[in-house]
Amino acid sequence: MKAIGRTLWAIAGGRIPLQSTGREPDFTSRDELSLLNTGGTEASVEITIFYADRDPVGPYRVTIGARRTRTVRINDLIDPEAVPLETDYAGVVESDLPIVVQFNRLDSRQAENAVTSTLAYPV
Amino acid sequence: MKAIGRTLWAIAGGRIPLQSTGREPDFTSRDELSLLNTGGTEASVEITIFYADRDPVGPYRVTIGARRTRTVRINDLIDPEAVPLETDYAGVVESDLPIVVQFNRLDSRQAENAVTSTLAYPV
Amino acid sequence: MKAIGRTLWAIAGGRIPLQSTGREPDFTSRDELSLLNTGGTEASVEITIFYADRDPVGPYRVTIGARRTRTVRINDLIDPEAVPLETDYAGVVESDLPIVVQFNRLDSRQAENAVTSTLAYPV
Amino acid sequence: MKAIGRTLWAIAGGRIPLQSTGREPDFTSRDELSLLNTGGTEASVEITIFYADRDPVGPYRVTIGARRTRTVRINDLIDPEAVPLETDYAGVVESDLPIVVQFNRLDSRQAENAVTSTLAYPV
Repeated sequence: MKAIGRTLWAIAGGRIPLQSTGREPDFTSRDELSLLNTGGTEASVEITIFYADRDPVGPYRVTIGARRTRTVRINDLIDPEAVPLETDYAGVVESDLPIVVQFNRLDSRQAENAVTSTLAYPV
Repeated sequence: MKAIGRTLWAIAGGRIPLQSTGREPDFTSRDELSLLNTGGTEASVEITIFYADRDPVGPYRVTIGARRTRTVRINDLIDPEAVPLETDYAGVVESDLPIVVQFNRLDSRQAENAVTSTLAYPV
Repeated sequence: MKAIGRTLWAIAGGRIPLQSTGREPDFTSRDELSLLNTGGTEASVEITIFYADRDPVGPYRVTIGARRTRTVRINDLIDPEAVPLETDYAGVVESDLPIVVQFNRLDSRQAENAVTSTLAYPV
Repeated sequence: MKAIGRTLWAIAGGRIPLQSTGREPDFTSRDELSLLNTGGTEASVEITIFYADRDPVGPYRVTIGARRTRTVRINDLIDPEAVPLETDYAGVVESDLPIVVQFNRLDSRQAENAVTSTLAYPV
């Protein structure tokens, strides 16, 4: 199968929930970017995080193996710096090869979890 | 990074939940538009709100700094007039520069919160 | 403002939850199509409902006033026939003028509600 | 009505929740792909599942009758092999005729269910 998707994607409504309820890591509140690389070559991805009141931070570098999917917890991005919790952010994903990007959130701040998922914007 | 996205976006399923449960402002029920401006120039945005039974209201004017993201709570739009709660509305977002728009809702009318998020329609 | 959007849209994951918890109509479980007509002329819309095991039913006819939004509860579509609960369906929305279509669900089968929303597919 | 949609779709954030709460099958945690075939000819669909750490598996073959919708629970895909629970995956849907694809999740791991739905990526 050839590489499908786009090389530039964006999501605009990021905000990692502050608290979590339930055992880790399954019920840890988080934002995630799920990245699919259907092609036969490893893809090199750079994620840039935008904020409301300061300059963007990045790139966070990630690779996705050939014919693999990879879910990146925004909570786990630490180099060049961690993404703060309960803070509005947006993300731009640039890849050297076409990929497909979906955004997911698990919010377990209260006793019961809440989930949402949306296709990222394919630029 | 250049400005990515579109200059005209729409969402069609707005409705701010009436009640909230939990401490403000984190658990306040709300609808939000998250606006990302990746470009190097401040973007001027006009939001128009459409209703089921009366003429549209607007524009609500918002700016987004260069290389910044901004989350607008529909609950907080008050000029030219506040958007009523528990009332169906739709929104059109026009920007002088390309941006990316995502729609989010937190519904905490009952004890546990519910969340949803969707990409706006890129016209 | 001119009419924005498309004249043909589809959603594929419909299923009206069977039970509801909480006072009607705010917490009634439902699927909804939200339709935005930004243009200066009333739009005539035909909705066709597809099923897993029988022929499609429709058209259900709806109008959307000029510069108005309208939220159609699938639960309320009764002519030519009601859409059964807890049954998979899909919907195609055809309009004589460009509109924007978003799909929403409120699921209050259990004590706490769950919500989701997604842009329909713009054909 | 003619066949509408695309012949190639992808979703990138799959993960079937491990536990379920509530009576089966209505409240069973699941991921679903909803497939709409508006055309007058049966569509033959092949689903390929991608993983984080091993080669993709498939095709899983499904047919959708003429002018029918079909909801495929990922939990029920067993040939060539079952999709493991609580494991990140992505899916590519290839059809010989245009279809519309939507992704849905019901997460009932805790007492109250959570739902999300998003349009798949139309390649």
